[in-house]
Amino acid sequence: MVRWEPGARDRLRAAALDLYANRGFEQTTAADIAQSVGLTERTFFRYFADKREVLFHGQESFQQVFLDGVAAAPQGSSALEVVTFALREASSFFPDDRRASSRLRQTVIDANHGLQERELLKLAWLSAGIAEALGRRGVPGPQAALAAETGVAVFGVAFRQWIAEDEQRSLDEIEVDTLGELRAMSLAVS
Amino acid sequence: MVRWEPGARDRLRAAALDLYANRGFEQTTAADIAQSVGLTERTFFRYFADKREVLFHGQESFQQVFLDGVAAAPQGSSALEVVTFALREASSFFPDDRRASSRLRQTVIDANHGLQERELLKLAWLSAGIAEALGRRGVPGPQAALAAETGVAVFGVAFRQWIAEDEQRSLDEIEVDTLGELRAMSLAVS
Repeated sequence: MVRWEPGARDRLRAAALDLYANRGFEQTTAADIAQSVGLTERTFFRYFADKREVLFHGQESFQQVFLDGVAAAPQGSSALEVVTFALREASSFFPDDRRASSRLRQTVIDANHGLQERELLKLAWLSAGIAEALGRRGVPGPQAALAAETGVAVFGVAFRQWIAEDEQRSLDEIEVDTLGELRAMSLAVS
Repeated sequence: MVRWEPGARDRLRAAALDLYANRGFEQTTAADIAQSVGLTERTFFRYFADKREVLFHGQESFQQVFLDGVAAAPQGSSALEVVTFALREASSFFPDDRRASSRLRQTVIDANHGLQERELLKLAWLSAGIAEALGRRGVPGPQAALAAETGVAVFGVAFRQWIAEDEQRSLDEIEVDTLGELRAMSLAVS
């Protein structure tokens, strides 16, 4: 009989983040994580394929919110306007009550080379997906790629600031500021 | 006695690209490459650590040209002006007589998931290196990251166009056009 523990996924995730941050990702096993919240290793594997997936779970949903944003942006928008629209829609994926756990997750990733690579690839896939979605809106290839990569760069830079210790602004506010910075920067190049 | 074959590195590299493109990267061995130009496998390994290195050899020099460009940009330049200066310096790394082999290399990389990952990581490292070099010029963290990522995006998009079949413009010309596009794009976002 398979028992589904209410809230088990969230408890496992929170416990995993704490252990990864304090003991190290490599030094933590799935059994350690499960035991720390009174569950079995078998239960862990009912929710996550492996201990890395705890960190990257939800990635598809995030990418989907972004791509839905690209599809939903008003007709007649320029390529970067479309990406900006999607970027701001996707910021709803990171409300302020996720800030602390997002920060902890980033600490874990920054401390492990393999996880950093996985994170970079995730963002590269996001960028490729956005470029493709822009292509479906009729944006020519090079322009789609430039808008997609620029949008992902803005997201990445804004996200880093959002999880900084003393940051108070929401992710959406930081994205707006970062887009303003991009505009000022681009104008200054002759 | 170690014999250094004159021009062996270039001959091995050209032969490797041809074999990777025609037979597939996975299906080609170091021995195949060496034999196709009348050299031994041992000679191959005198020049390259493994068959993947044939494709990524020169990466450090390219990164260095970019970082030297960041350091050499005129004082008082804005962050994206510095990156633009470096970008244009680095385009000297890809003169038009490298276009055909760069195109062939990209075909090989596009056909192999592991090589694509390696290429993405290479660009991510370049971006991180540029952000760090901007930091040494006193550019604040978030702005440095934004300028670096934007610059690498411009490079990537321009490079893809440069190696397109019917492209006549130099990489430098395409970079200038792409920067113009970025400026127009950024201005259109309100």
